[in-house]
Amino acid sequence: MNTTHSILFGLAAPLLLSTTLVVPAGAQDGLPDPGFDITAGDTALLVTDPQNDFLHPDGVAWGVVGANAEEVGTVENIERLFAAAKETDMPVFVSPHYYFPHDHRWHMEGALETLMHQIGMFDRSGPLDTEGLEGSGADWLERYKPYIDDGATVVTNPHKVFGPETNDLVLQMRKQGIDKVIIAGMSANLCTESHMRELQEQGFEVMVVTDATAAAQLPGLDGYAAAMTNFRMIASHVADTDATVAAMRDAR
Amino acid sequence: MNTTHSILFGLAAPLLLSTTLVVPAGAQDGLPDPGFDITAGDTALLVTDPQNDFLHPDGVAWGVVGANAEEVGTVENIERLFAAAKETDMPVFVSPHYYFPHDHRWHMEGALETLMHQIGMFDRSGPLDTEGLEGSGADWLERYKPYIDDGATVVTNPHKVFGPETNDLVLQMRKQGIDKVIIAGMSANLCTESHMRELQEQGFEVMVVTDATAAAQLPGLDGYAAAMTNFRMIASHVADTDATVAAMRDAR
Amino acid sequence: MNTTHSILFGLAAPLLLSTTLVVPAGAQDGLPDPGFDITAGDTALLVTDPQNDFLHPDGVAWGVVGANAEEVGTVENIERLFAAAKETDMPVFVSPHYYFPHDHRWHMEGALETLMHQIGMFDRSGPLDTEGLEGSGADWLERYKPYIDDGATVVTNPHKVFGPETNDLVLQMRKQGIDKVIIAGMSANLCTESHMRELQEQGFEVMVVTDATAAAQLPGLDGYAAAMTNFRMIASHVADTDATVAAMRDAR
Amino acid sequence: MNTTHSILFGLAAPLLLSTTLVVPAGAQDGLPDPGFDITAGDTALLVTDPQNDFLHPDGVAWGVVGANAEEVGTVENIERLFAAAKETDMPVFVSPHYYFPHDHRWHMEGALETLMHQIGMFDRSGPLDTEGLEGSGADWLERYKPYIDDGATVVTNPHKVFGPETNDLVLQMRKQGIDKVIIAGMSANLCTESHMRELQEQGFEVMVVTDATAAAQLPGLDGYAAAMTNFRMIASHVADTDATVAAMRDAR
Repeated sequence: MNTTHSILFGLAAPLLLSTTLVVPAGAQDGLPDPGFDITAGDTALLVTDPQNDFLHPDGVAWGVVGANAEEVGTVENIERLFAAAKETDMPVFVSPHYYFPHDHRWHMEGALETLMHQIGMFDRSGPLDTEGLEGSGADWLERYKPYIDDGATVVTNPHKVFGPETNDLVLQMRKQGIDKVIIAGMSANLCTESHMRELQEQGFEVMVVTDATAAAQLPGLDGYAAAMTNFRMIASHVADTDATVAAMRDAR
Repeated sequence: MNTTHSILFGLAAPLLLSTTLVVPAGAQDGLPDPGFDITAGDTALLVTDPQNDFLHPDGVAWGVVGANAEEVGTVENIERLFAAAKETDMPVFVSPHYYFPHDHRWHMEGALETLMHQIGMFDRSGPLDTEGLEGSGADWLERYKPYIDDGATVVTNPHKVFGPETNDLVLQMRKQGIDKVIIAGMSANLCTESHMRELQEQGFEVMVVTDATAAAQLPGLDGYAAAMTNFRMIASHVADTDATVAAMRDAR
Repeated sequence: MNTTHSILFGLAAPLLLSTTLVVPAGAQDGLPDPGFDITAGDTALLVTDPQNDFLHPDGVAWGVVGANAEEVGTVENIERLFAAAKETDMPVFVSPHYYFPHDHRWHMEGALETLMHQIGMFDRSGPLDTEGLEGSGADWLERYKPYIDDGATVVTNPHKVFGPETNDLVLQMRKQGIDKVIIAGMSANLCTESHMRELQEQGFEVMVVTDATAAAQLPGLDGYAAAMTNFRMIASHVADTDATVAAMRDAR
Repeated sequence: MNTTHSILFGLAAPLLLSTTLVVPAGAQDGLPDPGFDITAGDTALLVTDPQNDFLHPDGVAWGVVGANAEEVGTVENIERLFAAAKETDMPVFVSPHYYFPHDHRWHMEGALETLMHQIGMFDRSGPLDTEGLEGSGADWLERYKPYIDDGATVVTNPHKVFGPETNDLVLQMRKQGIDKVIIAGMSANLCTESHMRELQEQGFEVMVVTDATAAAQLPGLDGYAAAMTNFRMIASHVADTDATVAAMRDAR
């Protein structure tokens, strides 16, 4: 098996080579890199949860994600992706996370869901009530508002667990002819990864920007490391913001 | 924030205490443990991909998952769960992974999908053709057959990427009144985790058995570590096989 | 009935008899009536699109649905269901229909989607903008507001085509332990029927209230007749508002 | 294609008309006809349930659908579509309906589900057991086998209620780059319509072939009339087999 295995892995020349994104030299993991070819018209940028509770020092989750976000430059890198998308006329979709009073009456939750409810993360006063949203933990990071509120970005319904199964993201993308998605946003191993997984189940081709995301890091639980492993294994490609922005400009 | 954080986390008394599964002493991660209460009639065991290509030494993926499976005792632990479920009349669902010739004509795949296609993993000759299945990499591990082929276990349609979005698992469970799912099987951070995530998006309460699964471990990519992080953060509870089997018997 | 029934469907003894809703005497169609047993705790009322554009004489669709709504008493019957649910502590879910500016940039639509966009049906100024909603075609019918705005009713994300695939209805119901759904609202063969179909695909048990809905009737196209046929063939049970309200009270 | 397009879809009122809809010459229903432009590479033919139990005189449902099928020429028209697709290299997908022994242990069903189970429709001995399939009610109509078994047609997992939510149809189509679907097959208002509705929820552009389908017709319940109403209201276009085959050839 080992021989066969190393032969097979040795043969693992990517089946689909990207013309705009190069396979990282130095990839040592033996996995194929299918690649991701940015093409005008059917490629979009998706940003999950670009909200204060994750990315602002006053946000309720900054205590567990802030160090990671600062280390990789998440806040700036997400903005660079927004700017590059607008500069190159790439459609942009934002999938936000909000909790309404009725969500606090759920009968059961998973561990992080329970925690988010306990700390009041992403709370809003109601689905048809935007009072108090401005400047709250549920609001966009101030520096992202010019990109999100420009009249072109599609803000989907809020997702309610971690993935887009509970909102209209897939439909909104298909209705605009999108087949390929560059994913960034918060948090890496929860909403970002669940969006990546679900989009792939729905037949989208996806890549993830590794330093335009961040995750909770707790004793014995490194959400960022988990996400990096799963992004590499599952997506068609991973790249950092530098390479992604360059590819977006090249593909224009 | 740190102060607030530790206060908040200190307050994190689980909202839903399990009567049969105890919070592991020594959990140091500060996350709430919502718990998982096994109740007759609406709790099921789900096993993903209990197939030779993952769990038999001749399987095409054993070279990358075998060491992990041997270390945690995966093969035996899955069997112990099957046996405990049958002993306690808990409904059992198996979600298999098969690739047919038409799946090899897909236009794009992610990294692991590409690899699985390259090495012929889970290949069958057709959706209505079982010739050659017996004893192949796509077949059940021989020791599991008495549990799977007993006329009571529900074998769903094959999933096609990693999650149950492409098969009938959710419907089959709902049609039997199942609301809570104990998850085990292969491989930890891919199909097992995608099943956990999707079942949670569909409103099931889920727990994962940490040593009745295993994952690919490659240079720089530890699929098992990633899965353990995400199971703990996302599911309502995690436990090992010993604790889970004991709880299944207690709940009977 | 008996003759046809025994010839065609000799075995057709209903598998699941309802204890609270009786098979309508005089059913001549030869189909089994599985029945629908209202039980406290896991049965909910769902109302689709209880909005002015359908149900108010000034609404943009009243011209094509108004005659049907007046004939069957839709506006009053929906209110009677809301009132009976509140009186009997049955959970209530409302799935609304809104279109935002970005929805008007879709590349393709079906016939009725195209029409709804053309006539500005359900238009709102944005997903995070409720300005102008009050009293508009997208707003609730005034008489329903006490039931919808009582702090207990769950208002889901808006659906975007006809069914709940694009919102969080399924999750919200499962998170409150709901397995059975009484469906009413607008319009019969479009959103109401798509909700019925999707909930059944997701393993809910469903019944439809035949006179608490209405549909567009155009030359050669009777949406109400189509819906009545499909409700009877697909749901577990159909009943009128009188029978349904009586059963809700009996089941309390 | 332009010529054909204007001939075929000359009635296709522009996508955005005034709020006063222009009635297409010939169409009396006042609805817009968005039209459906067949293009090589991203348009597929989908056939639902082309199986003996619906379409063979010995099938268990022929008694209720046979008269309708003979009146509109369903059996021949489905074959003409298969042949035209193969002749023009259009990808073909078949979504079958099978029931396995475990499906008969479901706790609840809708009316037609109950009936189908009672009469043993689409029964097979197991998901991994094809014994007895040949020539049974669950088997393909003999005349369709050359088209379905040619090694190119994709046979998806079986759907389990009426729509493709429980199988891999959406993924299989997306993985082959399909965005537009011509729908035919059985039965009109149940599986065919549920496939149409779900594909549209998933962002596909769909048209339905009105005389390459048929439905159960029972006293007071005309499934075919219901389907014709809903196809016209929901899909982007409806056409008969003659027009569809001509358009397929022109688009080549």
